[in-house]
Amino acid sequence: MNEINSQISQQLSGYRRTIDNIDAALVFMLAERFRCTDDVGVLKAVNSLPAVDAEREKSQVERLRRLATGAGLDPEFVEAFFTVVVSQVVRNHQYIAQRLASAPKQMS
Amino acid sequence: MNEINSQISQQLSGYRRTIDNIDAALVFMLAERFRCTDDVGVLKAVNSLPAVDAEREKSQVERLRRLATGAGLDPEFVEAFFTVVVSQVVRNHQYIAQRLASAPKQMS
Repeated sequence: MNEINSQISQQLSGYRRTIDNIDAALVFMLAERFRCTDDVGVLKAVNSLPAVDAEREKSQVERLRRLATGAGLDPEFVEAFFTVVVSQVVRNHQYIAQRLASAPKQMS
Repeated sequence: MNEINSQISQQLSGYRRTIDNIDAALVFMLAERFRCTDDVGVLKAVNSLPAVDAEREKSQVERLRRLATGAGLDPEFVEAFFTVVVSQVVRNHQYIAQRLASAPKQMS
């Protein structure tokens, strides 16, 4: 019985190491995504472009749902996840625009 | 003026290609994570282990917040993201346990 428990425990530990590695990868990919969207935020703010592009978001959701289905992942979950990420991006963009608007103008 | 617009548009397209690549990576990493947690769900159900391990979740959150801070990512955002993922994992585990419980027993 103890041997069986030890086998189960080892199997569980193995799965958890994989999950921990994947989670680290997700965190670093998300960090890189926000670095990139922050650059987009600066580009949009400097050039007075609108923060939200509904057409672009629609095509992103469609693509992600397609990718999710192909990867055996629930497209509803991926859409919900994407919505959480985009909400944070919009908040970041608003913060960037405010920061740039309140920064002292450079003398030329 | 048109040349400037074209430059901005090209820059934006470049950023968007990066974001789309990262999003695809995120979807595939999430798919792999759920494949792994589904295996954990089967292991737990077959061995009548509890679906939730509060101690494990606590240490995961602490580690992810640490990784997020190191990567320049808001730890609050990462914790919220993790909560969404884990809620889905628990739903999947409950579904797996129900499915296994209602499956006809194999004759030995």
